[in-house]
Amino acid sequence: MNCATPTDITFSFKGFSQRAGITSDHSDGFGIAFFEDKACRLFVDNQSAVESPIAELVRNYPIKSRNVIAHIRKATQGKITLENSHPFIRELWGRQWIFAHNGDLHHFDPPLTGRFTPIGNTDSERAFCYLLDQLVEHFGYTEPSVLQVFAVLEQISPKVAEFGTFNYCLSNGQALFSYATTKLHWLVREYPFKAARLIDLDVEVDFSQVTTSHDRVAVITTEPLTQNEQWTSYQAGEMILFQDGKPLKHAQTHVERLERELKNPELKRITRADQY
Amino acid sequence: MNCATPTDITFSFKGFSQRAGITSDHSDGFGIAFFEDKACRLFVDNQSAVESPIAELVRNYPIKSRNVIAHIRKATQGKITLENSHPFIRELWGRQWIFAHNGDLHHFDPPLTGRFTPIGNTDSERAFCYLLDQLVEHFGYTEPSVLQVFAVLEQISPKVAEFGTFNYCLSNGQALFSYATTKLHWLVREYPFKAARLIDLDVEVDFSQVTTSHDRVAVITTEPLTQNEQWTSYQAGEMILFQDGKPLKHAQTHVERLERELKNPELKRITRADQY
Repeated sequence: MNCATPTDITFSFKGFSQRAGITSDHSDGFGIAFFEDKACRLFVDNQSAVESPIAELVRNYPIKSRNVIAHIRKATQGKITLENSHPFIRELWGRQWIFAHNGDLHHFDPPLTGRFTPIGNTDSERAFCYLLDQLVEHFGYTEPSVLQVFAVLEQISPKVAEFGTFNYCLSNGQALFSYATTKLHWLVREYPFKAARLIDLDVEVDFSQVTTSHDRVAVITTEPLTQNEQWTSYQAGEMILFQDGKPLKHAQTHVERLERELKNPELKRITRADQY
Repeated sequence: MNCATPTDITFSFKGFSQRAGITSDHSDGFGIAFFEDKACRLFVDNQSAVESPIAELVRNYPIKSRNVIAHIRKATQGKITLENSHPFIRELWGRQWIFAHNGDLHHFDPPLTGRFTPIGNTDSERAFCYLLDQLVEHFGYTEPSVLQVFAVLEQISPKVAEFGTFNYCLSNGQALFSYATTKLHWLVREYPFKAARLIDLDVEVDFSQVTTSHDRVAVITTEPLTQNEQWTSYQAGEMILFQDGKPLKHAQTHVERLERELKNPELKRITRADQY
């Protein structure tokens, strides 16, 4: 969730967390990160979001934030331990960075500098460390703008995606970077607000009653959370930057890759070493 | 708290958190970190540990851990925001590192490499980043042993302490490093266990009823938490490494500094630049 004004996520999280065992089987741990400016509260548990007392706290304690990333895990690689629970956290340029991945990368074992080292053994945390390593490689310790970060992610993400499914959300508290190779949806709620009804739970909220005209919220999710709102699905290879509760920039990385490949046929079969 | 076996901290935290507004005035935010192997759950709030729903969860949800660091803040430098709430977290060598500071450093503004950058504006987080920077300076990206880390901290900590009061606890999940210039106490609870009664709350636990002979717990705290146990106070400049619920190594950094100063009188007035 990326918002123009600090907003609580209790409505969406109530529906979302049902998927951790009730309406879906993503019950191998959960996590949720709430930014407050450059800092971040991260709640993680290796219990499911249905059973965890920490998830229960999050459903009932309206923490207001402009950038929130939540994840319910269905383990594909790595044990069900705390160190493998998304989202992952690292500090760079005096800000926390938060990353959650949906998908599965195979044999993704890039060389890392040591600046960011995985704590657990998931493909996802390796990908996160690799992205941040690449950002430092490009910008050193001088903080770039959000658009400069986007430009680097736009180059790197399709290379990682060659190893498998790579849908992710990444935030540094300023903006939310999102990328999809197979499945991600988004919508923006803004004035005039309407009522929304969850898919996973019999709950409806009339946002016109709880918002002001200054509020604006973008919600990005694997599968739509509500049944009566217009969700837009990401195209394969689409990257969207959200800031202030709306898309600020789009990129289509797969088209560009295809174009590059058409111009330079030898690019089609790049070796593992070249991919980094 | 540093333990031989995963132990919950609910007893100690109940008493400790009273000091966030009831029995003392450390009510400017709180935080608590629970290691599970190399990973860590960190709960922070800018509300006091008396009022925060997150603190209420921690008092009632028995999270078992071998290394826990908790902090209740009385703001001396930096606003009461999330980014200034201890303990602080950073990843190094594929482990989380957690740091909490009691005290006040004046004009402590060391040059930092950028590898670890403060998110907030406390003297404490700067000191943490500086310690980790120095560890990387010494060991690069090859993880040293706990004793090697201790040896570097033993050299650096008294230099930081020249800027003010520097009582801290630092853990990477393997061990707990502690240092005091003015105030810190410790005790070890082990077989045969006895009953302990909190100072701040009318609560007693008979540990012999809830432990096995394999359990052993070291508790390190600014002020003693119980009224009927034997707490040992740190001497000024004392550093203690705890592992498996007991002290593994002691060092007296002030004595060594005094000895050095006696041998080399010119060391007494080292310049700011030399201190780093």
